[in-house]
Order: sequence, then structure tokens, then C-alpha cells
Amino acid sequence: MQRYAIGIEYCGTHYRGWQTQQAGVVSVQETIEQVLSKVANHPVMLHGAGRTDAGVHATNMVAHFDSPAERSDYGWIRGTNSQLPKDISIQWIKRVSNDFHARFKASSRRYRYVIYNAAQRPALLYKQVTHIQPLLDFLAMQQAAKKFEGTHNFESFRAAACQSNQPVRHISHCKLSQHGPFMVLDIQADGFLHHMVRNIVGCLLDIGQHVHNEAHIDTIFAAQDRKAAGMTAPADGLYFIQAGYDEIFNLPQVTLGPQWLNWPT
Amino acid sequence: MQRYAIGIEYCGTHYRGWQTQQAGVVSVQETIEQVLSKVANHPVMLHGAGRTDAGVHATNMVAHFDSPAERSDYGWIRGTNSQLPKDISIQWIKRVSNDFHARFKASSRRYRYVIYNAAQRPALLYKQVTHIQPLLDFLAMQQAAKKFEGTHNFESFRAAACQSNQPVRHISHCKLSQHGPFMVLDIQADGFLHHMVRNIVGCLLDIGQHVHNEAHIDTIFAAQDRKAAGMTAPADGLYFIQAGYDEIFNLPQVTLGPQWLNWPT
Repeated sequence: MQRYAIGIEYCGTHYRGWQTQQAGVVSVQETIEQVLSKVANHPVMLHGAGRTDAGVHATNMVAHFDSPAERSDYGWIRGTNSQLPKDISIQWIKRVSNDFHARFKASSRRYRYVIYNAAQRPALLYKQVTHIQPLLDFLAMQQAAKKFEGTHNFESFRAAACQSNQPVRHISHCKLSQHGPFMVLDIQADGFLHHMVRNIVGCLLDIGQHVHNEAHIDTIFAAQDRKAAGMTAPADGLYFIQAGYDEIFNLPQVTLGPQWLNWPT
Repeated sequence: MQRYAIGIEYCGTHYRGWQTQQAGVVSVQETIEQVLSKVANHPVMLHGAGRTDAGVHATNMVAHFDSPAERSDYGWIRGTNSQLPKDISIQWIKRVSNDFHARFKASSRRYRYVIYNAAQRPALLYKQVTHIQPLLDFLAMQQAAKKFEGTHNFESFRAAACQSNQPVRHISHCKLSQHGPFMVLDIQADGFLHHMVRNIVGCLLDIGQHVHNEAHIDTIFAAQDRKAAGMTAPADGLYFIQAGYDEIFNLPQVTLGPQWLNWPT
């Protein structure tokens, strides 16, 4: 039995998220499992680094599966990508030891959230960015984003349906940058609660429109109540871009996505 | 009666091009005409600067229409965009004199063609770039692109169905640039023949894969026969980005698209 790690790019628009318990709706995970099972010629179970919500995208979701089937790396990728729908694509595969686990060995997850701040809505990319019409105060938002860095109780920033048994998370960075009409929030943490990134973005959008100021973030943290924070930002602009693992696993280093923004790093 | 110029962004994936004579299929032009007619409360005819093929996109298609209806600029845009499908969006509107004509007063048209050169196919943007798997020789293609500049007979580069009465066009620039895995051809001419940009890209893709060298372009030009050139590149990567008009019309200057590539100019 060989364990394989894979890197997956997907457009989440037409899926009920990475994983779903609902019958009759399709998740990204199931879609890939079905194709991998055909390529492997036995039922394959896939374990992902993170569970993205309905409509959320990924540029490098890491997952693993086990198979005794003998295929070349090229054979696995070609066989799978030729049968997957166009909005899901395996980007790389790597043989790993059995102590690798995409979910339990991930020490960090990293997301980017793309805001398109323009007077008129975009027709291209309309499901891959979040369009905000009112002019946003970038500097206020950039300053406020830093307040999320460090260790905090994110009770006010998680969905009611969140199943995590504790709400404290450590955010290693939370940085906002601007590229023409695009603003990109780059955020990394040991882990994220349900809707946590989208709720943080919702809070920053309030600050960018001067509904609240930066100090309001302290008030929201102190309340430890979801109702204290603002709206949940749409799924459209959110991308899972990286999971962190011990370098002993030697996973491929991939350019951070979404590649099309191509900003200087 | 007031004449209006408008700038339109659209994703061409789900349309049979800008204009179509086929019954039962939907063009971008008809889709916008139907909505403008509702906003204006009378039948509106729209004239575009160029006719894009099925699947081709636009970041700034210029068009004009006439209406006696009294609406603010804001009213026209909001009324139209709120009723248009998500993959079409009016970006600006400008009142112009009656001697403006989006098609006949356009002295140039400009397109960009986006190639995504990577080992695995993209899942995000899969209908908005053209994926080429084999490694392309960028420098050979960049050098070859220059050969199209100037005045040439493009008989070998036009579709059999092309209705233009003469095949000579003047290309003011034809430049290839590279941005990570993306290559972008930026090409401007007084006008384009049917499939001309996609046939030029097909020729450059042959050169990038060393099927032919740069000198082969002279052979193709000399043949004056479509069969002498290579394949027509897919519509997915092609964007109409600009039309040139006399500055007397004072149309809005728009950032060249597609905005998401955001490369230094």
C-alpha cells in the first residue's frame, strides 16, 4: 500500500464545498474520489487539509489517499485529470510515507480573499472575486487587518454551525494588499473556524466603508458573540492556497495562487 | 434623440459571439439590446466596434445606440446592469454627437490573447485562458510575433467564411509578453479578418513548439492560402480590449484588460 499526497486546484462555484453530508449534492472530495477509484480500480478515500465551504475555491488544496495500484505519477495525474470535470484539476502528486496525513499533519492553513472594488460589477471573474461597489478605505482596512494577528478567541467570528470544540486560534499573518482595483487579504493560521475568514473580511469591509473603526474589533473580540460581528462576506472571493507540513515530507513548493493576480511578492 | 456610447465587459463562453444570424441562439448584442429596450421603453439597436466570435471575451467593447428617453448616466447603467446576466456588464456610458459610430468611426481594434503554459490544465479560469501543455519557446514566439507588424495580405490567416472584400490589414503592433505561466499577445490593427488573431496565435504556437521556425511566416504570407497556415487557436484565451476613435469624441480611457493579469505596462 502506497500513500500519495496530491495538490488540487478547483473552482468551487458549482460544488457544495470540499465535503458534504447532504445526499444528492456534489462535493469536490466525492467528485475526485469517484475518478481516483476508477483510475486505481478500487474504492479510494481522500483526506483533505481543509474543508472549504460551498462556492469557495482552492489553488493548492493538499489531500492524501492510499492505493496498492501501480501507476506512474504521470499515469495518476493524466488518468485523473482526463476524467475530472474542467473545474477541478490535479496539479501534482507525491509518494509519501504512511505517517503523512493531509489533515492531521497540517500545522497551518493559508487563504486569500480577493475583493474587486469598482463602480460597476465585473462580468469576467464574476464568481471568482467579491465585488464591492462603494469606494473602500484601503489604508484603514490594511491597518485593521493587523489586529487579527496573534492568538485570539474567535468566538465572535465563527458560524453558529461551527463544530470545533474550542474557538482560540493563532493567526501568523493577516495582511491586506492592493493591486489596481483588487484588494487581497492573505491570512494564515494554525486552523480556521467555520466561516472565520469570511467573517473577518466582513468586519474589514465595514471598516473600509467607515461603518466601524479599527477599535471596534476589540469590542467584537470581547463580546465573544457572533452577533457582535458584521456580515459574512460571500464565498466567491475566497481561495484556499496553502497548507503547511513538516519539511520531512518534502511536498512540492507551489507558487501561491490565484496565479492570475500575479502580484509582486 | 441622443446618441450614447457604452463600454461593455463580457465573458463570451455562453454566447454565440457578439452578433449572430442564427435563430434560436443568443448573441451578446441581442442580450444587451433586449435589456436596453426595457430600460429605454422602446426598441433599441446596438452597434458594436467589432464582431467577436463564439466564446471570445471583451473587457472594453465599445458600442452605441440612440434613444430619446431621458435617463441619467447612472440610471442607464444601473437599470441595464441590474437586468443583464452576470456575465455581461456595462462599464461606462457617454453622450456623444450623432456623427459618432462605434463601428465606422473606429480606426483601430486591439485584442489580447492569453496562453497558460503549464504542465497541468487550469481549473480556475479554464474558459478564460488557452492551456498549452508542452513547454513553449517564448523567445522564438516573441521574435516571430514582430513579423506580423506592418501592412500585409492576410489571405492565409482568414477563415473560409470571412466576408471581408479585401485581405490587406495594417498591424500597428503585435507583441508577446510573459508573466509567470501566462503569455499574452497584444495586437492592434486597423481591422481584423475573421479568425485572424486566432490564426496568428496558431502560427505562433507552432513556432513555440518548434514545428516551424520564424521564416515559415514568410512562406505562409506568400501562399495566400488558408491551408498554408496552421490551426486556429481556441476562442477561450481571446479578449477584445480596445477600439480607437478620434479624440474629439472624448471617450473614457479605460485600463487595458483583462485587469486580473495586472502586469506592468
